[in-house]
Amino acid sequence: MKDVLLYEGKAKKVYQAKGKQNQLVLAYKNDATAFNGEKKSSFNGKGRLNNEISSKIFNLLHEAGVETHFIDRLSETEQLVYQTEIIPLEVVVRNVAAGSITKRLGIEEKTPFHPPLVELFFKDDELGDPLINDQHALFLSSITQDELQEIKDKALEINQHLTRIFQCIGITLVDFKLEFGRLTDGSIVLADEVSPDTCRLWDINTSEKLDKDVFRQGIGDLIQVYEEILDRLEEKV
Amino acid sequence: MKDVLLYEGKAKKVYQAKGKQNQLVLAYKNDATAFNGEKKSSFNGKGRLNNEISSKIFNLLHEAGVETHFIDRLSETEQLVYQTEIIPLEVVVRNVAAGSITKRLGIEEKTPFHPPLVELFFKDDELGDPLINDQHALFLSSITQDELQEIKDKALEINQHLTRIFQCIGITLVDFKLEFGRLTDGSIVLADEVSPDTCRLWDINTSEKLDKDVFRQGIGDLIQVYEEILDRLEEKV
Ligand SMILES: Nc1ncnc2c1ncn2[C@@H]1O[C@H](COP(=O)(O)OP(=O)(O)O)[C@@H](O)[C@H]1O
Ligand SMILES: Nc1ncnc2c1ncn2[C@@H]1O[C@H](COP(=O)(O)OP(=O)(O)O)[C@@H](O)[C@H]1O
Ligand SMILES: [Mg+2]
Ligand SMILES: [Mg+2]
Repeated sequence: MKDVLLYEGKAKKVYQAKGKQNQLVLAYKNDATAFNGEKKSSFNGKGRLNNEISSKIFNLLHEAGVETHFIDRLSETEQLVYQTEIIPLEVVVRNVAAGSITKRLGIEEKTPFHPPLVELFFKDDELGDPLINDQHALFLSSITQDELQEIKDKALEINQHLTRIFQCIGITLVDFKLEFGRLTDGSIVLADEVSPDTCRLWDINTSEKLDKDVFRQGIGDLIQVYEEILDRLEEKV
Repeated sequence: MKDVLLYEGKAKKVYQAKGKQNQLVLAYKNDATAFNGEKKSSFNGKGRLNNEISSKIFNLLHEAGVETHFIDRLSETEQLVYQTEIIPLEVVVRNVAAGSITKRLGIEEKTPFHPPLVELFFKDDELGDPLINDQHALFLSSITQDELQEIKDKALEINQHLTRIFQCIGITLVDFKLEFGRLTDGSIVLADEVSPDTCRLWDINTSEKLDKDVFRQGIGDLIQVYEEILDRLEEKV
């Protein structure tokens, strides 16, 4: 299924799909990075776990009527997706304060946000993915004001679906990061991944962290907690 | 005119006005600070220059119909203003890229912004006055969504007046920072100061910097350039 390697990112390799115009193979790697690449490691099985989890979640989002780049799971570590022109924004939705926002704005961890907060970051590793406002987003990308509103609305809708999905498996969806891309027909769909690399997931009862924070903070076994997420998803959903 | 000292900031002392409910005396100091207080110095005459310049500009804004805290110039270094409950936002308007935004977003200095950019920063020295978005502003302050829109509209209106005023004296208004406060009747007015401490001012012909950047960057005589601004204002406006 794989043709030329187009790009190697921190978590995935991106290949042209063989014989398919406008389709890509995303191959999930075992690498983990944090703090804009400052902390690095590799975990056997991480690529498989994220591919399985992300495939499952994109299938569930599809069933809920959300338009995404996802076509199919191809193998343990690979999936087929529509090629998009990625919009250089990291769209973060926060239900509960954790991570960078607690330090940035002095907000205590676990403070709930009603309504959920939507934050935009300029996807640019060299600049350290800085927080931006709406006007910056319009200046730095090729989207219109209406499209920006559409992206924020979609992010909040996806938040509702994901919150429900994770609640079913006993997990609080604290926050997550999305990327959106433009298809050849001009429409904007959810792209990239939804996984414990890109979500903060806390056990509803114990508040145990079941996401990349175990690696960021060195407080647990990454494979074990990602496996826990996949197991719960396979069991209950 | 001065009663008890209520607060000493980096650039001004704030006194209760004697016998006047809800009025303050702002006494401009000679201190200059930059980079969130990391760089400090004192310049004889700076307090007088900023008081004279800010008084002049608030008078011009008043003539243009902008509601502000300003009541009267009291002395060389003091002015009388209405006491407000300061909204903890630094509202920055940018006509041309310069300063922090060039590094933060990798935008080349002198890039023009059409329309002008409005940025909000959370006024909190300990947090280093971080950039925030609209939702953060509503979460971190007591203003409503409509009041936030009102503040941004006022900032852009003030930008038009200030741009015109500075153009009359051969100066490009590159960017500036405003603070707004709430009067006892609940209305929101322009507060704080408008001076070469809070504006980037470039000579239209030579692009010479006539503002606090001469101090930040150590590239000129602060008193000389502030004097130049006051002279031009007194001559032409
Ligand atoms: N459908 C898609 N079309 C095009 N690019 C995509 C798509 N989905 C994800 N990508 C991009 O694939 C790249 C590789 O992913 P990843 O390894 O997570 O990269 P990064 O190091 O930027 O986080 C990213 O630049 C991501 O934006
Ligand atoms: N009309 C007003 N009512 C109340 N506070 C004011 C008013 N105008 C300005 N201030 C406040 O006066 C304080 C002193 O000013 P300054 O020395 O510039 O302080 P800072 O160190 O915060 O920059 C600031 O906190 C400013 O917000
Ligand atoms: Mg990524
Ligand atoms: Mg000040």
